[in-house]
Amino acid sequence: MYLCVKMMHMDTRPLLLLTNDDGYNAPGLLALMEALKPIGDLLVVAPDGGRSGMSAAITVSQPLELRLVSESEGVTVYKSNGTPVDCVKLALGQLCKERAPDALFSGINHGTNASVAIHYSGTLGAVIEACLNRIPAAGFSLDDHDHQADFSPSLPYIQQIATRVLERGLPFGTCLNVNVPKCSALKGVRICRQTKGRWIEEFDQRKHPKGGNYYWLTGNFHNDEPESTDTDMTAMREGYISVVPSQIDMTAYDLIPVLNDWF
Amino acid sequence: MYLCVKMMHMDTRPLLLLTNDDGYNAPGLLALMEALKPIGDLLVVAPDGGRSGMSAAITVSQPLELRLVSESEGVTVYKSNGTPVDCVKLALGQLCKERAPDALFSGINHGTNASVAIHYSGTLGAVIEACLNRIPAAGFSLDDHDHQADFSPSLPYIQQIATRVLERGLPFGTCLNVNVPKCSALKGVRICRQTKGRWIEEFDQRKHPKGGNYYWLTGNFHNDEPESTDTDMTAMREGYISVVPSQIDMTAYDLIPVLNDWF
Repeated sequence: MYLCVKMMHMDTRPLLLLTNDDGYNAPGLLALMEALKPIGDLLVVAPDGGRSGMSAAITVSQPLELRLVSESEGVTVYKSNGTPVDCVKLALGQLCKERAPDALFSGINHGTNASVAIHYSGTLGAVIEACLNRIPAAGFSLDDHDHQADFSPSLPYIQQIATRVLERGLPFGTCLNVNVPKCSALKGVRICRQTKGRWIEEFDQRKHPKGGNYYWLTGNFHNDEPESTDTDMTAMREGYISVVPSQIDMTAYDLIPVLNDWF
Repeated sequence: MYLCVKMMHMDTRPLLLLTNDDGYNAPGLLALMEALKPIGDLLVVAPDGGRSGMSAAITVSQPLELRLVSESEGVTVYKSNGTPVDCVKLALGQLCKERAPDALFSGINHGTNASVAIHYSGTLGAVIEACLNRIPAAGFSLDDHDHQADFSPSLPYIQQIATRVLERGLPFGTCLNVNVPKCSALKGVRICRQTKGRWIEEFDQRKHPKGGNYYWLTGNFHNDEPESTDTDMTAMREGYISVVPSQIDMTAYDLIPVLNDWF
């Protein structure tokens, strides 16, 4: 049924491409580097600042920069003025011409990307971009926006998931959306489906000093199915790390015969 | 199997929310307004300039503006400094509190959004946002980047597709990605699946006057399956308007049992 597209090079250390949407010096990315340094050489190409909510956006109207930040044994760090997807494109197109990365890992995001956040998240945008380029990829997010968030309980699990991705590969067109609850005593990993839900906006409307209104985007997530036992939101609520296998083919196949009757 | 979530209000004219990613005064949006004015009242909320490649990005780090541009019988136009998704959120959260739109239509985009472009497109980002909010939605794109592109051959088909969406609704969690080939003698509409393929980057690298390099993102689409007969790219190549029913649940269900063996 599936074709595995990439397996670990057994003769050399794996080359791991890392990025995120919180910027190259975000604590979540530094934690991810710590977790993955033991299992591969790291090439970090990340935005030069926060790019939260950038989805799979690409930069088409301005030029992209790519600057070396640091280079040490097994860890090379670049930053770019682009989006997370731009970072992946620059890495693959400019830095990995001779050897493609064995996997891409994105995160650890400051804040959850469970449920439909996969559509908005820059962290997951980078994962989708790698997936389109046939590179096994996973995005990691912690349900804690605090800059001082404690990533340490998640690191052994993230290392295990990354190792599995390298050992076993992922079928073409699929990637992983991994979310960690804010919880010191994690219970383990649970494979889940994407929760049905949405963000309900509550705009913070303010008067502009020069007249008119402006709006800050705020909102709360509404879970359409809090009782379901197989969703990522439920897994997290119960103290598990959720892993949602996700696919880039968005075709609603069941709807094709229905629409054929429309015309 | 499916639950239809919205049907046309039979007692009043439908309220149609329109947006795009090329800006509120783009010829493609003006063409869409012409096509849809006969079938509903139009509320246009579109970016104040080009937002191509913005995907489903949201603006989290700066305030959003929303300004009335014009108001006439059956057509109200607003512009915003936000992304296409921000425009949908502002419309639903600020302008449609009393009556939800009967449908959202986005476009007509200047350039194709077939195949995996659904992941990068701001036009389709808006469609996904409406879909998440249970509003039947379709995105329309013409495979012609020219500012003078001729949208007229597509307009009767777009009106027909929009009418069907209003009459029959779309199942919750699904939306339409409609792409029109550049062709004066369109052959009709074909229901398709998303073509497997990707953009292969060829960065245009230039020397910065102050030292170092910068890059313009360019690239060519590579079709992984040019011989397949049921894809959107093939339909367009053969002179048909492609309609790909698309879904917001990205879970790769077949992979759940595989991953359960990983841990």
